Amino acid sequence: MSDFDKNLTSQTHQQQTLDLSIALLERPSVTPDDDGCQDILSERLTQAGFDCEFMYYSDRQAKGEHAEVKNLWARRGTTNPVICFAGHTDVVPTGDEKNWTYPPFTPTIADGYLWARGAADMKTGIAAFTVAAERFVANHPEHNGSIAFLITSDEEGPSINGTVKVIETLEARQEKITYCLVGEPSSTDTLGDIIKNGRRGSLGAVLTVTGKQGHVAYPHLASNPIHAALSALAELTNATWDNGNDYFPATSLQISNINSGTGATNVIPETLEAVFNFRFSTETTEDELKAKTHAIFDKYFKDSKASYAIHWKLSGQPFLTPEGKLVSACQQAIKSVTGTDTTLSTSGGTSDGRFIAPTGAQVVELGVRNATIHQVDEKVEVDDLGKLAQIYEGILENLLLD
Amino acid sequence: MSDFDKNLTSQTHQQQTLDLSIALLERPSVTPDDDGCQDILSERLTQAGFDCEFMYYSDRQAKGEHAEVKNLWARRGTTNPVICFAGHTDVVPTGDEKNWTYPPFTPTIADGYLWARGAADMKTGIAAFTVAAERFVANHPEHNGSIAFLITSDEEGPSINGTVKVIETLEARQEKITYCLVGEPSSTDTLGDIIKNGRRGSLGAVLTVTGKQGHVAYPHLASNPIHAALSALAELTNATWDNGNDYFPATSLQISNINSGTGATNVIPETLEAVFNFRFSTETTEDELKAKTHAIFDKYFKDSKASYAIHWKLSGQPFLTPEGKLVSACQQAIKSVTGTDTTLSTSGGTSDGRFIAPTGAQVVELGVRNATIHQVDEKVEVDDLGKLAQIYEGILENLLLD
Repeated sequence: MSDFDKNLTSQTHQQQTLDLSIALLERPSVTPDDDGCQDILSERLTQAGFDCEFMYYSDRQAKGEHAEVKNLWARRGTTNPVICFAGHTDVVPTGDEKNWTYPPFTPTIADGYLWARGAADMKTGIAAFTVAAERFVANHPEHNGSIAFLITSDEEGPSINGTVKVIETLEARQEKITYCLVGEPSSTDTLGDIIKNGRRGSLGAVLTVTGKQGHVAYPHLASNPIHAALSALAELTNATWDNGNDYFPATSLQISNINSGTGATNVIPETLEAVFNFRFSTETTEDELKAKTHAIFDKYFKDSKASYAIHWKLSGQPFLTPEGKLVSACQQAIKSVTGTDTTLSTSGGTSDGRFIAPTGAQVVELGVRNATIHQVDEKVEVDDLGKLAQIYEGILENLLLD
Repeated sequence: MSDFDKNLTSQTHQQQTLDLSIALLERPSVTPDDDGCQDILSERLTQAGFDCEFMYYSDRQAKGEHAEVKNLWARRGTTNPVICFAGHTDVVPTGDEKNWTYPPFTPTIADGYLWARGAADMKTGIAAFTVAAERFVANHPEHNGSIAFLITSDEEGPSINGTVKVIETLEARQEKITYCLVGEPSSTDTLGDIIKNGRRGSLGAVLTVTGKQGHVAYPHLASNPIHAALSALAELTNATWDNGNDYFPATSLQISNINSGTGATNVIPETLEAVFNFRFSTETTEDELKAKTHAIFDKYFKDSKASYAIHWKLSGQPFLTPEGKLVSACQQAIKSVTGTDTTLSTSGGTSDGRFIAPTGAQVVELGVRNATIHQVDEKVEVDDLGKLAQIYEGILENLLLD
């Protein structure tokens, strides 16, 4: 391809991705409302030869107006490997719109940025992958394997009726994703500088310690749940859970809340509640963390008049996609478009990748810069849109062409 | 005295104390309202040869309707020793009167008890001492030394404009109490089984730990005040402050409140607050407790990104009246009236004795049974009223007759 052709291609990626981004950003699809975004996508993808299927799931616990979530599963091709783009059309609320420089649902180009709620997280990613897929299948209508889209509007909310349910349905019919590209904004300083090839697990706990209320002047008649809890909690925060590995930092524990007391200064309270959370690497497991925690508490409570209980809640297992075919495809495509040697990372919070990785899929998160996500004046560099579409197209080429 | 005379004397003590008790109990003198009780007392005491002086103190911080407290200082005699009865006419609120078997301000005799708010804490004590003093001065008009009353209506409330201010005034004019009998209900199972010859000190503290807020997934960017505080607080609760002595149990520490957290499970909070309280013996001091506490915190916070501050509040110094003239006078009088070998104790909460002891006075608390104080259906054994007046009269005899 000549330099002229390259520029032309680039410009076309840019304009197409920008146009589709704006169409999606004009929809105030505050979670869990998709507000028609998936209809726009399914029209485009059907034209490009995708089979589009909407999947609706509702929460039995909350049969309200917005309890039903709409998800889109689109697939072109019937063979393996299946490379799937995963993303969400819902956005977080805007807060007071008066604080925004430009109205959050009137996408505005200014100072080299595209400003709108969802500009970074993550409608431009969806637009870029759609453009990439359209161009790829136009150029390679007989490509190997399959291309798929898994789009939900329940990522920013409770994440109950979105990706996790679609994956359950796919698993039930033994439909597998081989490579999953999550379009979350992974980039930090420049487009493609960081991709996420895994995420730590997240295990939450609510500790309740029950003692016996009394007067501070008569401690022998009471049992102070604060005193009972302190040594165990101190040991918990000082413990080493693992040392991490090449991909993960060491497992960490943080106590986020601790509350006990009647407010009166002369009363020994009845109960204490503390909330803590593990972010854990693949060097340990949910069961190990629970067992070690209980061992610490059992040691201190064995001879105590107070008792304890822990209510556990797993938010996500850790997952890891080591260096291999998907990671290489991403690295090469990024290098080709931006010249950047991308860095692998497993840091940060959870994403829907946690629901997809357990099926055996390789999962990487790759998207635009995340500097303004969830903030007022969310925005993304306009020039990055076409580049991201080019990167995604390059990944399809790397994985689906011989 | 013949047995007949003894019985006659006893009946008279009984009836007189009961009558005065009822007159006082009919007044709904909920703290800080004296509601005329001190006027009843001053009339009686004036007739018995006492000089009565009302002392009014108001709180500069609260110039409200009830901000002014009325106190009574009554004295008969000008020489030493001065034996003073200290008490309060105010009572704690009744709560919902529907929960009372008998209306709380309609003193009722039933089942061998006198039922009313203040029956135990401590209008019957005031009545008993008044009767004892009247009888003593009638029998011994030329007694040695002086008899005094220090009566306040600000004991159950903030204790700002009551005994503490009267003592300041007496100190300013160099008027000293030699022996102080506080009429608080000290008895547990039977009248006179326990007298309090001291009280532990009470030192309160509010701890504030300041860290840096952040996301639990990025603990290296934050500083968790809960983690920073735990080890220091654990060491604090496990520390030995002293081993007590013949009169005092070991100094004890209780944390009554601990609070930190935003409520969110994924946020490391900015600050932690904990409230703790020392009940301390005469084997240590306020300054020692503060110094040891700061040493513990300094050790853990020396290399911490978090910082701490402690706001101290002393509620009362410990005081002790060892075995001596006043204790002996009480022991003998109790033994003579009830046959009981009384037990010395320094346990329990604070009383106004804490304000009187620092002047150098010997202080003992001796009164009726405390089983129902501050409760619904407060009551006292009717038969104990005359006996208590006899005990008080016996103490006067033991101290003021050669």
